[in-house]
Amino acid sequence: MLLTRRFKHCPSCGAPVQYLVPPDDNRERATCTACASIHYENPINVVGTLPVYGEQVLLCRRNIEPRYGMWTLPAGFLELGETSAQGAARETDEEAGAEIELQDLYCVLNVVRVGQIHLYYRARLLSDRFNPGPETIEARLFHEHEIPWDELAFRTVRETLQRFFEDRRLGRPYALHCADVG
Amino acid sequence: MLLTRRFKHCPSCGAPVQYLVPPDDNRERATCTACASIHYENPINVVGTLPVYGEQVLLCRRNIEPRYGMWTLPAGFLELGETSAQGAARETDEEAGAEIELQDLYCVLNVVRVGQIHLYYRARLLSDRFNPGPETIEARLFHEHEIPWDELAFRTVRETLQRFFEDRRLGRPYALHCADVG
Repeated sequence: MLLTRRFKHCPSCGAPVQYLVPPDDNRERATCTACASIHYENPINVVGTLPVYGEQVLLCRRNIEPRYGMWTLPAGFLELGETSAQGAARETDEEAGAEIELQDLYCVLNVVRVGQIHLYYRARLLSDRFNPGPETIEARLFHEHEIPWDELAFRTVRETLQRFFEDRRLGRPYALHCADVG
Repeated sequence: MLLTRRFKHCPSCGAPVQYLVPPDDNRERATCTACASIHYENPINVVGTLPVYGEQVLLCRRNIEPRYGMWTLPAGFLELGETSAQGAARETDEEAGAEIELQDLYCVLNVVRVGQIHLYYRARLLSDRFNPGPETIEARLFHEHEIPWDELAFRTVRETLQRFFEDRRLGRPYALHCADVG
């Protein structure tokens, strides 16, 4: 599997690691051949927002790989030292330069294939002026009928947008959606 | 900060790393002095369940450090290759040997201090017979008035139980709770 066996050397002492099942464990772990320390590999979190301005939602056109030129909700990897809400707000600022009021957690999407959980918060845009950072070619608002469905960067962006428009169309309260994305 | 600067050597080639801000980044990252590869450190996820049997909830007494002898909800680190729901069910099986029907995601708790997000699902116990694994001294059911509040292993366990009993007392639907835990 692409995601595992990321370690060739021990990040503590630099000696080669072997993948072995430690005592009292049931999975192979990167185990140092010199200092015997064990190094775990776990899924990581992507955090972002679904920023709404009246009838419209904000998308960012990516200026970076992967998916250069495709459209995404503002999102990125959660960093140490911040909460998921803080990370989502930071990414919205960095990628779109958008002023928002962060609302509730809206989607928790497992993407097992890449070892990620994507957490999207709804957000209310306080302005329709944006100041995108270097990772974004363009940040702009879209009505539902304008969404570039075939040019979305990630499956979780599509899933989040689809659920939002469906909830809105049906007049449903915006409760949490959990799903697994292939 | 305890959590950062975990890397002393490059896990790809074993050479020493330096913490430097890469171009187009705004944080110091473990950067290899030989092969220049960059290694990121991110928060990880703990997944577990709040298993309910009629009026009672299931707790496990820890047979491992940290918090040996304290009571916890069944939970542990999310592994690569599984969804958060699958991980929560696996931990419930490994720690309690409990038969459950997994229900909705109930708590998303950020624990920034240790770089973790804890995700707890509600679960319906299908039996009051348990078969705890080696990480558990004892698995047993508690009525609300029996909960060993002063002997709970983790703040997130306390927060999850408090919210559950309050929701139940008030007859509220079990909607998602999000909180930051110090």
